[in-house]
Amino acid sequence: MNDFTPPLRTSIGHATPDSIEVCGHDLTNGLMGEADFAAVFFLLVSGRLPDNGEARLFNAILVALADHGLTPSALAARLTYTGAPEAVQGAVAAGLLGAGSVFLGVFEDAGRMLRSAIPAGDGDLDAIAVRLVEDHRERKARLPGLGHPIHTEGDPRTARLLQIAEQENLLGPHIRLMLRVQAVASSGGKSLPLNAGGASGALLCDLGIDTAALRGVALVARSAGLVGHVVEEARSPLGRWLWDTAERETTYVRPD
Amino acid sequence: MNDFTPPLRTSIGHATPDSIEVCGHDLTNGLMGEADFAAVFFLLVSGRLPDNGEARLFNAILVALADHGLTPSALAARLTYTGAPEAVQGAVAAGLLGAGSVFLGVFEDAGRMLRSAIPAGDGDLDAIAVRLVEDHRERKARLPGLGHPIHTEGDPRTARLLQIAEQENLLGPHIRLMLRVQAVASSGGKSLPLNAGGASGALLCDLGIDTAALRGVALVARSAGLVGHVVEEARSPLGRWLWDTAERETTYVRPD
Amino acid sequence: MNDFTPPLRTSIGHATPDSIEVCGHDLTNGLMGEADFAAVFFLLVSGRLPDNGEARLFNAILVALADHGLTPSALAARLTYTGAPEAVQGAVAAGLLGAGSVFLGVFEDAGRMLRSAIPAGDGDLDAIAVRLVEDHRERKARLPGLGHPIHTEGDPRTARLLQIAEQENLLGPHIRLMLRVQAVASSGGKSLPLNAGGASGALLCDLGIDTAALRGVALVARSAGLVGHVVEEARSPLGRWLWDTAERETTYVRPD
Amino acid sequence: MNDFTPPLRTSIGHATPDSIEVCGHDLTNGLMGEADFAAVFFLLVSGRLPDNGEARLFNAILVALADHGLTPSALAARLTYTGAPEAVQGAVAAGLLGAGSVFLGVFEDAGRMLRSAIPAGDGDLDAIAVRLVEDHRERKARLPGLGHPIHTEGDPRTARLLQIAEQENLLGPHIRLMLRVQAVASSGGKSLPLNAGGASGALLCDLGIDTAALRGVALVARSAGLVGHVVEEARSPLGRWLWDTAERETTYVRPD
Repeated sequence: MNDFTPPLRTSIGHATPDSIEVCGHDLTNGLMGEADFAAVFFLLVSGRLPDNGEARLFNAILVALADHGLTPSALAARLTYTGAPEAVQGAVAAGLLGAGSVFLGVFEDAGRMLRSAIPAGDGDLDAIAVRLVEDHRERKARLPGLGHPIHTEGDPRTARLLQIAEQENLLGPHIRLMLRVQAVASSGGKSLPLNAGGASGALLCDLGIDTAALRGVALVARSAGLVGHVVEEARSPLGRWLWDTAERETTYVRPD
Repeated sequence: MNDFTPPLRTSIGHATPDSIEVCGHDLTNGLMGEADFAAVFFLLVSGRLPDNGEARLFNAILVALADHGLTPSALAARLTYTGAPEAVQGAVAAGLLGAGSVFLGVFEDAGRMLRSAIPAGDGDLDAIAVRLVEDHRERKARLPGLGHPIHTEGDPRTARLLQIAEQENLLGPHIRLMLRVQAVASSGGKSLPLNAGGASGALLCDLGIDTAALRGVALVARSAGLVGHVVEEARSPLGRWLWDTAERETTYVRPD
Repeated sequence: MNDFTPPLRTSIGHATPDSIEVCGHDLTNGLMGEADFAAVFFLLVSGRLPDNGEARLFNAILVALADHGLTPSALAARLTYTGAPEAVQGAVAAGLLGAGSVFLGVFEDAGRMLRSAIPAGDGDLDAIAVRLVEDHRERKARLPGLGHPIHTEGDPRTARLLQIAEQENLLGPHIRLMLRVQAVASSGGKSLPLNAGGASGALLCDLGIDTAALRGVALVARSAGLVGHVVEEARSPLGRWLWDTAERETTYVRPD
Repeated sequence: MNDFTPPLRTSIGHATPDSIEVCGHDLTNGLMGEADFAAVFFLLVSGRLPDNGEARLFNAILVALADHGLTPSALAARLTYTGAPEAVQGAVAAGLLGAGSVFLGVFEDAGRMLRSAIPAGDGDLDAIAVRLVEDHRERKARLPGLGHPIHTEGDPRTARLLQIAEQENLLGPHIRLMLRVQAVASSGGKSLPLNAGGASGALLCDLGIDTAALRGVALVARSAGLVGHVVEEARSPLGRWLWDTAERETTYVRPD
């Protein structure tokens, strides 16, 4: 059906009876107890360990995205736990499955837009920003990473991410372009704040994270929050109340 | 259908237009840039931030479990990506769904066994260990956390976890009981090394992590490795080769 | 890591450039247009096509379980669709993940109990029923398949399933034992009606469906209802209302 | 966060203590034992029961798509079962998650193309077909529903579906347009046969199935095959052999 030229390759990991290697590093002597989990996750998606400043920013992005309260994802995880408490992996998986185009997909959308717009050698970011905004307006497409239903005056996570990136000297071309896009898009009237997803997507591009990994970063971050929700659901359940509420507040109407 | 006494409660998180709180901490000023991601995950499942030693051990456990090569979970994620590359969340979810009784469930099984065996006030761990091993032998049940298909002479991650726990003064009653169980189980003949899952489950109990959260810790750890596999699959695919191999090496036989 | 004796075998299906075989039947000339979908599903799990009476009963079981309104499963699917409408497979998968020990697992639990209790050659079903009820009472375990939160006076689906099974001469030893278990369990006082899950599990055993396939039958049935909910969610969404309601009705309380 | 005008509505189903209604039909007296499962699934996604001819064609489509051997989806389900055999719902869900843009998404893509191309009142299908093919060639986009890796000379399922649709007088404008698209696309040289996914998508449009439900039809069909694979995996496992093969045939190479 297909042609393959063996040998096939992987660079993720390898185990022998007495050693384990992860992306070129000895797991037990080089990583465990030395690198934090976020640094090893950075290694798994980019093939290299971050330096201290990069690790601080990458950790801050993961922390910023770890939880956002009783979102549809968290509710889906809790409702799944209601039916299958013995299979926690199913509840976490159900929560992750809602991380699509409407919610956490913004990471990937923002990163893709920025990467395809930035030419080799940086270029005139102001001109690129104007072009991006005009192009989206013409296509009546939504600019990824702007606006937030709750944080309408500015996403507090964005300000903090920018501060950390500045402290660590990591304000690269992608976040600088994203900020110009935000300024151009807001110049006409209604202010559209840069949200944490858009800022994170841009900063991850500056950190050299692969576009294919952007949504995955959000997934790992959110999995921590989902496990938190599942643990709370075990102690203090909301699932049956949601079920009851949905049944009670919804009217059954025969199809036309 | 059910009785509920409002108001319902959550302690995970809360957002106002200009601030976000996670488990009683200000997200932007108290956590981002200050605490690493693993520490915030610890907070989400236990309601408190770890101290430095606890954070180092918790990070080491997550790092130890982040990846283990081309496991069935990693292959399921890569095969799912083959069919639906636009929905990375599905590939990661598919990988997590294999974290059940055979593989990562050992965390929970070990923790549950240790927690139910340790009485208030610690007790005589040697006697408890003998009783646990005898009880499992009688029921012909497998002792969770012992033995490994590859690391037959000893799981190198276990030795490192024990070393870090000792350095941080975190060798509590659960891991000490687990080590005695391992010694008793191996005394008869064939050595059954303590594997990383069993050691991690015990150490997480000593860290005060809820039993309901044990499998969840493994899920967050493994999600990092799964994202690594998905990123590699995008660049260097194995999915179609696996498909081709399965079709070629399997003989179709009509049902009896 | 393991020993395998090739060639490996499968009896599910096989394709050549101009023909496709499913479980020993020509797909295009023997099944499409001749057998209904439920009959082919029966073939896939049991290796043989059902006769007309068996097909009618199997269809009735699938129809009975296809939907049950705004259950936690349906809500999880709809909430997942809210975040990822482009990946309908994720919404359906999320809904299926709640089919565990609390809800649709009853199929499997009932089937397992009945199969392990019935000796070769049928035996004295009255005595077996008494023993099963006593054994569960001693272990304070719940008898699978009895009781329903809404249909407290009797599950209307059960009565209809029994009627169809009688019409088709398919009241075998498993359903007869299940009915005796129900009678014994209800004799003491509170009536515990046989629910559709318990009746279906027993009838599927009588149809010769493998225990490993019982939960799977419920999953295929429910997937039809979940697709219905997803299609309705696309037109008439409930997801954001659920989110809004959960946020509004829940009080954030700092962890102790 | 959002505005809602209660009461919210659902038309899927409703239960009282002694009756259950599905899409306006009495479940126990009107559907169970009377309508087959595929007809009830048709009802759930379209709000009406099919007539006999429609039910025969809809069943044939579901049967055609129920299984296709050891596909990536089936392998992902089997590998998930390897790790979590106690949670069959996770194995089936993992298999469904691969039904995305590369594989079963063709249903939806074909349906969307045909629906947006056909004007009110049918129109000149030949001219529309030429325009569709030219438009895809210009955009270098792949025409959905054409070509097959195995059935290079023609998909045998397509021929049978067309025959059944003709017998039942259900060759509507969408399938007629799809056939013209196939003819125009193949006129230049290399023959591109209409595959079962493309034919099914077109025929489902002619049956009046909502575009949002097209992928869902494929998911329900495939779930039957996935349950078949899980049952076979329980008896005759391939999962560990796949794992072993992937480990053995893949070379670990350190990242650059």
